[in-house]
Amino acid sequence: MKNLLLLSNSRMPTTGYLEHAVEAIRETIGGAKRVVLIPYASVVPSEAVAWDATTANVRGALSSLDIEITAIHHYKDAAAALAEADAIMVNGGNTFNLLRHLRRNELIVPLRTQILAGKPYVGWSAGSAICAPTIRTTNDMPIIDPSGLDALGVIDFQLNAHYTNAVPDGWMGETRDQRLAEFVAMNPTMPVFGLPEGDWLRVRGHEITLCGPFPGKWFASGREAYGVPSRSTLLRPTSA
Amino acid sequence: MKNLLLLSNSRMPTTGYLEHAVEAIRETIGGAKRVVLIPYASVVPSEAVAWDATTANVRGALSSLDIEITAIHHYKDAAAALAEADAIMVNGGNTFNLLRHLRRNELIVPLRTQILAGKPYVGWSAGSAICAPTIRTTNDMPIIDPSGLDALGVIDFQLNAHYTNAVPDGWMGETRDQRLAEFVAMNPTMPVFGLPEGDWLRVRGHEITLCGPFPGKWFASGREAYGVPSRSTLLRPTSA
Repeated sequence: MKNLLLLSNSRMPTTGYLEHAVEAIRETIGGAKRVVLIPYASVVPSEAVAWDATTANVRGALSSLDIEITAIHHYKDAAAALAEADAIMVNGGNTFNLLRHLRRNELIVPLRTQILAGKPYVGWSAGSAICAPTIRTTNDMPIIDPSGLDALGVIDFQLNAHYTNAVPDGWMGETRDQRLAEFVAMNPTMPVFGLPEGDWLRVRGHEITLCGPFPGKWFASGREAYGVPSRSTLLRPTSA
Repeated sequence: MKNLLLLSNSRMPTTGYLEHAVEAIRETIGGAKRVVLIPYASVVPSEAVAWDATTANVRGALSSLDIEITAIHHYKDAAAALAEADAIMVNGGNTFNLLRHLRRNELIVPLRTQILAGKPYVGWSAGSAICAPTIRTTNDMPIIDPSGLDALGVIDFQLNAHYTNAVPDGWMGETRDQRLAEFVAMNPTMPVFGLPEGDWLRVRGHEITLCGPFPGKWFASGREAYGVPSRSTLLRPTSA
């Protein structure tokens, strides 16, 4: 049974890295001891430095859990590392770079296989976005070409993490709602769920629950976007 | 001699569509009468509706100029239409969709050829972004796969249109400056120019001038980002 925790973001304005999510992570991974982290979304100052720094940051943030976190880039056989781990975590950063390395390292199918087999998966931001069929609703800049936008597809709708329709003062570009309306216009059979900062999705088998303090929002072709209260089960909208 | 006007955006907070740019457009296109518009960046409510609506909007906005604007999607031979036009305009919207249609319609080389031959080109937002070597510094959502991120490359640096580092209240994702720092970390030989809302670049041959009320900003690998005053000639930074 699928067992995923998909966090919108890693940090709230007043708390530390992953601090708002520690209890949800604990509940999701259960008795897992050996956790493999996939830090490919980290970019600056360089990948080599960033990937180890992120791994250290995650270890620090989750030090209250009785787990050992290793990073995928230190394994010679990364697919075997995923298979042997008790749980998998994927941090945020740049979604295009994350997907690019998953594809180059031929990890998309092995990762999907582990998730579908029920291995606990914890993602935040980019790490949540790649669970959708594609990354075509990421907010990130396409700083590097991922050789195609198809992603894991372990949930059957698109995710928009860090969802907000707020814009900075003076902004004259598209709002988030306009961008997502454009997505569903171009992709009428694929709805998008806007997952606000501070919230997460809890996926158990086919049941998906919106958790956290804020309402989310569905975008689907041919109908007005509509809100979803927190603590409710997500029902994928049909196009009107 | 190359002759381009690359606007950051189409509209200022208190003025109408293209109103802030009419005089710059007039100066750029000179005596041009027959203008072809490429409206592929327009997406909603559907491309068929959006492309004609955008064409009508541009005609209205530029009605004080003595020009006739036709749209590329009404020509059977689009490359010939570009060759026969006196000037070319490309509006904003979704950069990925614009690039996708240019590529599918095999217009990237014909468009580049016309620009390099000196045909006046006026772009705004997405229409400016595609003049860079790639669209990898767009702010847009990748709502559709353009089959590769390479673009026209008629300027030799990346553009970030709608440049601002402001973020909405409560935003915990990356700032624009962080995104652009990530770009130059991943692409150390390619600088990015942040073109603020309300400004434009005037390209005449190899000389590029920043115009409009606001300073711009260069991002390059290995050095701090730095401002560029308006009314100055752009000098592509070297990486430190």
